[in-house]
Amino acid sequence: MRMLINSPETVVADALRGIAAAHPDLEVDVERRIVVRRGAREGGRVGLVSGGGSGHEPLHAGFVGPGMLSAACPGEVFTSPVPDQMLRAAAAVDSGQGVLFVVKNYTGDVLNFRMAAELAEEDGIRIEQVLVNDDVAVTDSLYTAGRRGTGATLFVEKIAGAAAEAGAPLEEVAEIARRVNAASRSFGVALSACTTPAKGSPTFDLPDGELELGIGIHGEPGRERRPVMPSREIARIAVGAVADELERIAPQDGRVLALVNGMGATPLLELYGFTADVCAVLAERGVHVARTLVGNYVTSLDMAGCSVTLCRADEELLRLWDAPVRTAALRWGA
Amino acid sequence: MRMLINSPETVVADALRGIAAAHPDLEVDVERRIVVRRGAREGGRVGLVSGGGSGHEPLHAGFVGPGMLSAACPGEVFTSPVPDQMLRAAAAVDSGQGVLFVVKNYTGDVLNFRMAAELAEEDGIRIEQVLVNDDVAVTDSLYTAGRRGTGATLFVEKIAGAAAEAGAPLEEVAEIARRVNAASRSFGVALSACTTPAKGSPTFDLPDGELELGIGIHGEPGRERRPVMPSREIARIAVGAVADELERIAPQDGRVLALVNGMGATPLLELYGFTADVCAVLAERGVHVARTLVGNYVTSLDMAGCSVTLCRADEELLRLWDAPVRTAALRWGA
Repeated sequence: MRMLINSPETVVADALRGIAAAHPDLEVDVERRIVVRRGAREGGRVGLVSGGGSGHEPLHAGFVGPGMLSAACPGEVFTSPVPDQMLRAAAAVDSGQGVLFVVKNYTGDVLNFRMAAELAEEDGIRIEQVLVNDDVAVTDSLYTAGRRGTGATLFVEKIAGAAAEAGAPLEEVAEIARRVNAASRSFGVALSACTTPAKGSPTFDLPDGELELGIGIHGEPGRERRPVMPSREIARIAVGAVADELERIAPQDGRVLALVNGMGATPLLELYGFTADVCAVLAERGVHVARTLVGNYVTSLDMAGCSVTLCRADEELLRLWDAPVRTAALRWGA
Repeated sequence: MRMLINSPETVVADALRGIAAAHPDLEVDVERRIVVRRGAREGGRVGLVSGGGSGHEPLHAGFVGPGMLSAACPGEVFTSPVPDQMLRAAAAVDSGQGVLFVVKNYTGDVLNFRMAAELAEEDGIRIEQVLVNDDVAVTDSLYTAGRRGTGATLFVEKIAGAAAEAGAPLEEVAEIARRVNAASRSFGVALSACTTPAKGSPTFDLPDGELELGIGIHGEPGRERRPVMPSREIARIAVGAVADELERIAPQDGRVLALVNGMGATPLLELYGFTADVCAVLAERGVHVARTLVGNYVTSLDMAGCSVTLCRADEELLRLWDAPVRTAALRWGA
């Protein structure tokens, strides 16, 4: 396997140096591994901190900035950051209004964020947490008790970030974040495995001519293998799984935000074709898509494949979605 | 090879349908294959039209919008669009102020844009053309007489687009576009070949443990094969090739815009690490990097690899670079 790296040991630190070089509006502490919005403590806003294993870029560091995250804590590749990172990030962004931790539902992340929350509270920082668990594919997995957190993380961070930017108090920002998570579901499909720098070979073996349905973002096993099929059939399966689950929660009534996400190595040309198929299936089901975001946002290194995330959004959530955001990976209206 | 497509024949039309679904601020004519900024003819601005083979997304359709292109004409994968597309695009965007064609230097594109320019002039549309030829790796290639057009296309389209948006007349927009091209050079490296939908197998054979220096954006041969090397050595070769060439044109005096571009399948984590190496080499050489853009912008389907483009930018070009832009793939300040 050929990678554009210096060594597996320095991958995360090297990337942080690159982020610092490319984005002077971010404060990057390479040694302590935190990325902070410049001036995060000014303005008296609630802070938003997220983090998780590296390898899902632009998640999370690419979402730090006005209107979204206050700080991100990258761990080693596919490995939770440590509580000390989260604690330092919380301290770096708390203006006295408290901090919301956005936590993807993986065992390591959950434990470490919980410990960091306790330490932060001891230091006098008020903490709320939201657990993102949107992946309908599996109930438990290698890394998870319950559903995994995947694409909905972007919706939670964007919408809760807009609420914080607008001056909402901690409890309200947390409530909105939980509401977004509860209204969101995802389903992913792998057309290839990914290769971690440390291992240097694919995380699982996918025979030629097959794809894996219900994949997570770490190359962990999905629901089932199937022969390669046309994009429109993949869309039917992915959208079906997500929309069925959303309808189980409550009858379809409103509009959705749609994220058509690439896993890292799928060409944007293909991803846009898949988007057409996703929108066609949604139209058949009578689902009105209010906003569509297409791109590589919640990735799995060099995995080929895609995921679909839908979030049922009322007027308030749509307004917060549309609010200005200025980060490395997502920016509009400002 | 597993692809997220319905069939090789429908890849481009399917992608255009997805672009239409995701971006309601674009007018997409799927049948005639043109993507037009909504209201392009309003405001009495000079029009900017580009196009080329598909497979390089987000180039060009992802750069259509206020502050950048007025329209894009996608051809089949790695195949020039036809003059009729370019002519229709010119007619769709001309407000009477004329239209600039931004043409990457590939034989098919050059011939077809030239023919479209003649036809448009016959229809009373004033046309200027700028040829982008920034790739220092090879002087001639399979598809080119002279240097290939690659990453600098983004700089030309952004900066000339800002000039047009500000109301500059056609000759001035064309002059700025030519100035940007003359001040820009690129060098690309492939860590894997790409696979076109029609062929279904890699465009060239790259043995494991080797990489290809000086690659273009169509999988055409580069300068030479070398054993896999650390990212910082790749940066030294790529930056060296570009900066040496820029210094041959004129002594280093000012600042540069830097594009650290992924070819499609290289994880963003790796690309940021490479960015750190690129910036380190530039700092050693005493080159001041005024702005850095990192991401997959001028791609080659699922190729793993990267390219470096530098543009010497004076105050005027920097100001135009910083001007607001609102497209699918590039947006800031608006």
